[in-house]
Amino acid sequence: MEATMIALFFDDSLTVRQMAKPKAHTGEALIRVHSAGICNTDLEIIKGYIPGFKGIPGHEFVGEVVSSPDRATIGHRVTGEINGACNSCDMCRAGLQRHCPDRTVLGIINRDGAFAEYLTLPAENVVRIPDAIEDRQAVLIEPLAAACAILEQVAVGPDQSVLLIGDGKLAILIGWVLQATGCRLTAVGKHSHKLSLLSRAGIETVPLDRFKASRFDMVVEASGNPRGLAMALEAVRPRGTVVLKSTYADATSFDQARVVVDEITIKGSRCGRFEDAIRFIHNHKPPLERLITAEYPLRNGIEAFRHAQEHDSLKIVLNAGS
Amino acid sequence: MEATMIALFFDDSLTVRQMAKPKAHTGEALIRVHSAGICNTDLEIIKGYIPGFKGIPGHEFVGEVVSSPDRATIGHRVTGEINGACNSCDMCRAGLQRHCPDRTVLGIINRDGAFAEYLTLPAENVVRIPDAIEDRQAVLIEPLAAACAILEQVAVGPDQSVLLIGDGKLAILIGWVLQATGCRLTAVGKHSHKLSLLSRAGIETVPLDRFKASRFDMVVEASGNPRGLAMALEAVRPRGTVVLKSTYADATSFDQARVVVDEITIKGSRCGRFEDAIRFIHNHKPPLERLITAEYPLRNGIEAFRHAQEHDSLKIVLNAGS
Repeated sequence: MEATMIALFFDDSLTVRQMAKPKAHTGEALIRVHSAGICNTDLEIIKGYIPGFKGIPGHEFVGEVVSSPDRATIGHRVTGEINGACNSCDMCRAGLQRHCPDRTVLGIINRDGAFAEYLTLPAENVVRIPDAIEDRQAVLIEPLAAACAILEQVAVGPDQSVLLIGDGKLAILIGWVLQATGCRLTAVGKHSHKLSLLSRAGIETVPLDRFKASRFDMVVEASGNPRGLAMALEAVRPRGTVVLKSTYADATSFDQARVVVDEITIKGSRCGRFEDAIRFIHNHKPPLERLITAEYPLRNGIEAFRHAQEHDSLKIVLNAGS
Repeated sequence: MEATMIALFFDDSLTVRQMAKPKAHTGEALIRVHSAGICNTDLEIIKGYIPGFKGIPGHEFVGEVVSSPDRATIGHRVTGEINGACNSCDMCRAGLQRHCPDRTVLGIINRDGAFAEYLTLPAENVVRIPDAIEDRQAVLIEPLAAACAILEQVAVGPDQSVLLIGDGKLAILIGWVLQATGCRLTAVGKHSHKLSLLSRAGIETVPLDRFKASRFDMVVEASGNPRGLAMALEAVRPRGTVVLKSTYADATSFDQARVVVDEITIKGSRCGRFEDAIRFIHNHKPPLERLITAEYPLRNGIEAFRHAQEHDSLKIVLNAGS
C-alpha cells in the first residue's frame, strides 16, 4: 500500500496535493474513501469564512474500513458521525457528544476530512451502511441526518402547517423528511428546477416572488440567505416555532420585539443521528440520487468546487477511487 | 357623578388633562382606578417608540368595578387582563386570546389605559383581587404574571442552572418566580441596591463588571439592553434555552451561527396568566411593596414619569384617588 494519497488541501486557497496518508491513532479507524459530497460548509471554508481552518475539508462520505479497533467493521462500507467527542465532559456525559466543547469535527475543526483517498475517525463514530443503500445514496446520509434532526428537536405532525424556506440540497432533504410526517407543508424557493424535486414529492411549492407570508405553525429557515430569518418571523404565527438551519459569517439582525410580543420560539438545528437517516431511507426510499448534479474524480476537485458554487448546482460528489 | 376625569394623555408628548369619562360599551366593565404602575412599555410609549399610539397609557392597575354585565364583580377590587380579544379568530379559538391579531391592549393598542380616574375593559378580562392582597401589591399582579409566563413556556426546576440578566423591576419579579422553582439561580445586574432585592431572596448575585460567562442551562434576558441577547448567547450552554423578555425599538443583531451550531433555543415571552400571579403571591408572599420606589398623585403624573426614567428607580405608582 502506498504511503501517499491525493487530497484537496485548504490553506488560504484550495489545491490538489499529494500528501502522506493519515495514520490511525489509538481508538481510530482508517477509512478508504469512496465518495464525498461538497456541502455549503465546505464552500464557506474555501471562502475563508471558518476562521483558523487549514487542512483537508469534507465531512459527507462513504468509504470502506481498512483498519479499526472495532474489527467487525473492517472491510465494510461505512460512513461516520463527524463529531469526535472527548467522552468525559459534562456534555458528553449528558449524551450530547455532538456538543462536546473539545470535539474535533471531520473536515471542519481540528481533523482532516473526506476530500482525500483516506481519512481517520474515532472507531465509535463509524456507522455501517446496509447493503440496500448504494454509495450514491449513502454519501447523503450525513445531510439527511441533519434534516432528521429537526424531528428530534420539535414535534411535527398532521396538525401543523409548516413553511420551508429554501430549495438547496439541505432544504430538499428537509422537505422530504417533513413531508413524511404528514404535516401541511409549503416550500418557497427561487429555482424552479430545484422546487420541482419537492413538488414531485407532493409538496406545495411557491416561487419566492409570488410568496405571501401567512401564519404558519412552524417555519424552517434553510435558505442560506441572511434575510431568511426576517422572512421566517413574518411568516410564523404567534407562539409558533422558527427552526434555523443556515449559518452565516456575518451577524444576523432581527426584530426582537416581534419575537417577544408574539412569543415566538427560535431553534437552532445542526447535526442529526445517522441511524435516523438510515431508517428514513429504509422506510421512505427518498430519491437521494436525484440530488446529485455531477460527480468528479478527486483529482478534478478544484473544478468540482467551481461547479458546486454555481446557483443551479445541487450536490457535487467527489469520487476518490476514480 | 362627574362627567369628566383627570388622565395622562399622550399625543407626541404627555400631558395631564381633564377629559370625558369613558363610557362602557356592550360587554365592558367601567372601573374606577385606585392605582396604576409605570412600566418600561409606558416609558417607550412616551418616547414615541410605539408607532401610532395616541391616548391614555397605563396597563398595570388596581381599581373598583363601577358597572359591569358581570354583576358579581360590581363594587369589588379588581385588576384586569390587558389583552381584549375578538374571541372568534383561530388564535382565540385555540385559547390564545392574548395573541388575537385584532386584540386591543389596555393603554398600548387601541384602548385607553389606566393613568386615569376611570377605564373600561371587557368584563371577561376583569380579575377579582383576594382581600389578603393589598392595593400596593395588587398593582404588581400584571408584571408578576409576565414573570410567571416563563414557567408556562419552559420547564424550570432544581436540576437546572439559570442566569438572570437584569435587575430592573421585571427582572426582580422574574428572579423571585425562578427562585421558587428551586433552580440554581444567578442574577447579574448593574445596580447594587436593585440586586440586593434578589440577594435578600437567597439568589446569588454578581455585578455586571465582575461577571464571567459560563454554561447555564437557561438564561433569561430581562435587562432592557440591546446587548443582552449577545450576553445571553455567550452564557448559555449548547442545547440550552434563552428566554427573551426585553423589547427594543431597533433591530437586534446576533450570531446566528452560534445558535445553529450549538442548537440553542430562543423563546420570546410576554404576558402571563393573572391567576398564576395571584397564586404565587398567596403561596410565596413575595415582598412586592419593596419594588415601589415612590407613589404620586395622578395629577403629578409628569413628575412621576420623570422619576420613573431615572436609573435608580424601580416601580413608580400613580394614585388616582389622591
